[in-house]
Amino acid sequence: MIDPRTSVINERLSKVKRLIAVSSGKGGVGKSLIATTLALTLAEEGFKVGLFDLDFTGPSTHILLNAEKGLPEEDKGIIPPTVQGLQYMSLVYYSGENPAPLRGVEVSNALIELLAVTQWGELDFLVFDMPPGIGDVILDLLRLVTRIEFLIVTTSSFLAFETVKKQAALLCDLKVPIIGIIENMKITSNNNYVKVEAVKLGLKFLAEIGFDEKVELAIGNKGKLLETSVGKVLRQVVKENIM
Amino acid sequence: MIDPRTSVINERLSKVKRLIAVSSGKGGVGKSLIATTLALTLAEEGFKVGLFDLDFTGPSTHILLNAEKGLPEEDKGIIPPTVQGLQYMSLVYYSGENPAPLRGVEVSNALIELLAVTQWGELDFLVFDMPPGIGDVILDLLRLVTRIEFLIVTTSSFLAFETVKKQAALLCDLKVPIIGIIENMKITSNNNYVKVEAVKLGLKFLAEIGFDEKVELAIGNKGKLLETSVGKVLRQVVKENIM
Repeated sequence: MIDPRTSVINERLSKVKRLIAVSSGKGGVGKSLIATTLALTLAEEGFKVGLFDLDFTGPSTHILLNAEKGLPEEDKGIIPPTVQGLQYMSLVYYSGENPAPLRGVEVSNALIELLAVTQWGELDFLVFDMPPGIGDVILDLLRLVTRIEFLIVTTSSFLAFETVKKQAALLCDLKVPIIGIIENMKITSNNNYVKVEAVKLGLKFLAEIGFDEKVELAIGNKGKLLETSVGKVLRQVVKENIM
Repeated sequence: MIDPRTSVINERLSKVKRLIAVSSGKGGVGKSLIATTLALTLAEEGFKVGLFDLDFTGPSTHILLNAEKGLPEEDKGIIPPTVQGLQYMSLVYYSGENPAPLRGVEVSNALIELLAVTQWGELDFLVFDMPPGIGDVILDLLRLVTRIEFLIVTTSSFLAFETVKKQAALLCDLKVPIIGIIENMKITSNNNYVKVEAVKLGLKFLAEIGFDEKVELAIGNKGKLLETSVGKVLRQVVKENIM
């Protein structure tokens, strides 16, 4: 059975120049923080940028952006509200602060529905905050959306990187372009484990970001987010590897 | 349609005295570490303990336990191998180091299949390492397995705790027993935010665990894991709240 919504998805995204999925095999590595700060950094550079939170069962970019509640406007689809200069969309506009217990098929449905109805319009970049692991959202996104690039986030932890490796292997098998890998929340700087392993996997090691306790105080504040170590490193990554 | 496997699940678990799910709304908070160390701690106290890794799309307890590869034995079902003194089961025995991209319905199937065929036998405790968020595994487990208790893990991060709150709210709504909440990887000790909020939610605040960089070096080593701050605090939690 052909879902009529899937055929309109690439049409909906046709005026978006680049699609970047910020992803990790593992949760808690700072993926949402990096997706949000990357979007803000690109906007600071003068680009038109959208941010789409696809971590449906644990969304957090709305907290990072201090997004206001309230239903987005509709006009032949949903118009993403402008939040901190970004075109922004998240399931929390519809689920609010309530838990959103979603089964895989419902996750797929929410993804297809939001992709099919959101009117992103003209954008230079659309950044996706992906859920952790290799589940329905990533499988559907790869199936439904062409020309998507991945930015992979890990920490220095052996445990985190082992799961990240699995995701990277899957993306490589599927010939999905990977911009590179970022090592976040690094505490000891004399450990090159992630860099060495990333290169072995054929991935570009983009940057390491030191652990910065100012991040916690920057939540909800665009200016402060851009001044954390995450913001500073991403500015460099954007200039050297994304722009 | 009734799945014949679901009717045997509670029969399979009938000789397990207590079922404890270690859970978090968010990934990367140390859930697998705490599930594994909790199981090891209970075993050290002389109990018969099983550990079942249900984080199918990002399993890591096998790395923490340094579990050997190789297919488990079968005898009227699967016999969980004994690893570091625990009866142990994980999907990695079947997927190996390959990525396991699973859709929700496949996650449900893997869960039902493993619950239906694994011969846990007599156990004092069976500890489940849950996937992050509120997805198929938690919804199925609550549906299929009665008398399961939850232990909730968070970090001090506002972002982590906001997602944890949603999961706790869901469990409270469903009248699922919650042993309490553990605050992990705490860096600044003069912040009572999580404790205060946990009590507001009607949850018991069990303990805080300071960030311990020795954890990274303890991966794969039972003795070292039990000597980390995680092991030390869990010994106290087990004595005061679980035994």
